[in-house]
Amino acid sequence: MTMHDVGLPARDDLSPSRAEVYARVHAFDRPTLVLDVDRVEHNFDALQAGLGDAHIHYAVKANPAREIIERLVQVGSHFDAASRGEIELCLSQGARAETISFGNTVKRPSDIAFAYEAGVTLFAADAEEELQKIAENAPGAGVYIRLIVENSQADWPLSRKFGCHGEMALALLDRAKELGLDPAGFSFHVGSQTRRSEMWGPVLDQVLAVWAAAHEAGHKLRLLNIGGGFPAFYGEVIEPATAYAAGVMRQVRARFGDVLVMAEPGRGMVADAGVIAAEVLLVSRKSANELHRWVYLDIGKFSGLAETMDEAIRYQFATPRDHEAMGPCILAGPSCDSADVLYEKKMVSLPVGLTAGDRVVIRNCGAYTSSYSSVGFNGFPPLDVCVI
Amino acid sequence: MTMHDVGLPARDDLSPSRAEVYARVHAFDRPTLVLDVDRVEHNFDALQAGLGDAHIHYAVKANPAREIIERLVQVGSHFDAASRGEIELCLSQGARAETISFGNTVKRPSDIAFAYEAGVTLFAADAEEELQKIAENAPGAGVYIRLIVENSQADWPLSRKFGCHGEMALALLDRAKELGLDPAGFSFHVGSQTRRSEMWGPVLDQVLAVWAAAHEAGHKLRLLNIGGGFPAFYGEVIEPATAYAAGVMRQVRARFGDVLVMAEPGRGMVADAGVIAAEVLLVSRKSANELHRWVYLDIGKFSGLAETMDEAIRYQFATPRDHEAMGPCILAGPSCDSADVLYEKKMVSLPVGLTAGDRVVIRNCGAYTSSYSSVGFNGFPPLDVCVI
Repeated sequence: MTMHDVGLPARDDLSPSRAEVYARVHAFDRPTLVLDVDRVEHNFDALQAGLGDAHIHYAVKANPAREIIERLVQVGSHFDAASRGEIELCLSQGARAETISFGNTVKRPSDIAFAYEAGVTLFAADAEEELQKIAENAPGAGVYIRLIVENSQADWPLSRKFGCHGEMALALLDRAKELGLDPAGFSFHVGSQTRRSEMWGPVLDQVLAVWAAAHEAGHKLRLLNIGGGFPAFYGEVIEPATAYAAGVMRQVRARFGDVLVMAEPGRGMVADAGVIAAEVLLVSRKSANELHRWVYLDIGKFSGLAETMDEAIRYQFATPRDHEAMGPCILAGPSCDSADVLYEKKMVSLPVGLTAGDRVVIRNCGAYTSSYSSVGFNGFPPLDVCVI
Repeated sequence: MTMHDVGLPARDDLSPSRAEVYARVHAFDRPTLVLDVDRVEHNFDALQAGLGDAHIHYAVKANPAREIIERLVQVGSHFDAASRGEIELCLSQGARAETISFGNTVKRPSDIAFAYEAGVTLFAADAEEELQKIAENAPGAGVYIRLIVENSQADWPLSRKFGCHGEMALALLDRAKELGLDPAGFSFHVGSQTRRSEMWGPVLDQVLAVWAAAHEAGHKLRLLNIGGGFPAFYGEVIEPATAYAAGVMRQVRARFGDVLVMAEPGRGMVADAGVIAAEVLLVSRKSANELHRWVYLDIGKFSGLAETMDEAIRYQFATPRDHEAMGPCILAGPSCDSADVLYEKKMVSLPVGLTAGDRVVIRNCGAYTSSYSSVGFNGFPPLDVCVI
C-alpha cells in the first residue's frame, strides 16, 4: 500500500514520523493509537545520553502498553509505578523489583504490602499517615519525601495535590527514622510540560534549601528524585531531549553534587511515539451566518483526549486536505456530552473543505491517551491501540 | 450481617436508601457502585405518572448497566441511544427497535445503517451533512431537529455543542423533505440538573417560537422531544419527580397542545438508585499550620467521579464518624494525576477524626459514573458495579 491509496498526500515539509506514516496508509475501523516502540527506545537513549548516570524510572502511567514496558526493560530502564496494577505489569515484562519505585504518595496498605513482598524497596510519601502505612506494610523500606514546589513556568503547573512544605518534610524525615524506615531523600515535580531546561533553576533552588536544612538537621540524604516534566511537542518549540536532559543535570549537579539522581520521564518518553488515527464525523455551522465551523471527530475527551481539559494540551492535526485553504473551527468529540468539546476558546485551524469521512491524524498522542479512555461512555469502545 | 458489623451507625435522620444500606453492611475490595434496580423502576413510575402520555426514552448513556435496561424494557420504557453499542445493548435486553431513538446528532454512517437495518426509525440531526448521512443510510427515516436554547437556570447549562438556531432549523426541515426524510419535529435540552419545573418556561417559549414558524412555513410537525434535565439530589432541594414532571408537562401542553411528546430522563431516572462504596486512603496536611486537611479517597475523577469536573456535581458523603466534629477538607482521588482533585474551591465538610481505612459512602452516584470510568488510568481497574 502507498500513501496515495488513502488519499493522503506526502508531506515532506513535516517529515511524518513512522507512526504517522503507518496511520496514513492503513485503514482503521475506529479511533486507534498507533505506537512506535522503536521511537520509545530512541527517546530512552536520547534522554539517558543527557541524564548521564541518573537513573530513568519511566512513569508507567503515561502509557502502560505491554510492548513499551517490555522494550524499556530490555534497554535497562527503571520504572515508576502508581499502583499495584502497574507494578504487576512491570514484573510481568521482566522488570526486576528493585528497579521499580512505588511513586504514588497515596497508597492502599495492601498494595504496599504486595509491593514489599515482591521486592520493591523504594516508596514515596508526603504525610505522616502514609509513613505509618509504609512502616507497617514494608518495614525498613526506603522512602523519599515529596516536596511542594512553586512551578509557574510549566505549561501545565501542577495543583497542590502532591507534596508537603519544607518544615513538614524535615519532620517527616525524623518520623520515618522513628518508624524504622530509611529516609533516602526528596522528590518534587517541576510541572508538566516544562519546555526549556533553564526553567528548572528556580525550582531546584527551592529543593536545595530544604535539602541543606535536612543535612543541617543531621539527615544524610543520598537520593534526589527529580520527577517528570520532560516536554513533548504540541506546537510550541521545545529543546531536543538530550540537550534538555543535559541542561537539567548540569543544574542539578551544580547544586547537589554527586548524589544519586532518579528521573521519571513519562510524556517525554512516549508522547512522540504515538499518533491517533481518527475520522471526521460531521462538519456544521449553528446558523447560516456563523463565521466558524464545528468539526466533530470520532474521538473526544472521554475516549482518549482527556488532556484537552481546559484546553491544556494542544494536539496537532494532519488531514489529507492540508494543502487547501484553512479556517478556524471549534473541535468536539463524538459523545452526547456537552462537555466533550476539545478546543473552543482557542480554535483550531483546519481545511475549509473538511467533510464527514475525512481522515485525521492527531500527532504526539503517545502519552496520557489510551489509559485515560473511558470503559465505554456513550457505548463507544475504549481507544484501540496498535503497536508497530 | 448488621450495620454494626462494619462500624457504621444507623442514621435515621437521613433514612438511607436500600443501596446505601447495602453498601454500609457489605465489604468491598475496591470502589464499587451499588445499584438498586427496584429504585429505577420506582423512578420510572414516578416520572411516568407526571409525564402522562408522553413517552419516556431513558438516556442509556446515564447508566448502561444491563440490569437497568432489562428492567426498563419490562416496565415499558423507550430508549434514547447515543451509539450503535447502546442500540445493541437495548436490543439484547428485549427492547423493540421502534422504541429506540438514535439521539446523537453526530453519527457514524455505518452506525446509522446498522440502526436502520435493525428497525430504528427515529434519528436526531442538527446539520445538513447529518441529514445527508441519514438519507443515504436510513432512507425515509423520521428525523427531529435539535435546537439550541438559552438555559442559564440549569445548575449545569450545556455548551453550544448540540443544536442549531431557529432559521437553520427551518432550513433543515426543508432539506430533510428534499432528501426524502420525514421531519417529525424538534428536540432541545433545557440543561443538566434543572432543579425546578418552572425553570422550563423560558426555554419552552423559545422552542414554541421556532415551532410556530415551522408551521407557518408549512411543516406539519407532530413530535416534541423535550430531552433531559430531570434533576437528582446533590445537596440542593429539588422538586419530587412526579410533581416536577407534571409541572413540565403542564407548561408543554399549554404551549404545544396535543402533540406527541418524548422525554429523555437519564440522571433523573438512575442517580438516586446508586451509591459508591469507597474508602479513605490518606488524610494529611501540607504543613503543620495549615487549617484544612487533604482527604484522598480510593476513587477519583478518572475512576468514576468525572462529573466533579469544575466541581459541577457536588456529591454527598456519609462516613461512620458523621456524629463526630466536622471540618473542611480538600477532597482528591487516588491517581498520580495532579488534576485528580474532586473539591477544592468549595471544600467538603468531613469528620475531623477521619483516617485512612475509613469507609465512605457517596450518595446518588447512579448516573454518569461507571461508564465515565477510565479503562485503567494509573493501573487502577474500572469502577466495579454491584446490582442488588
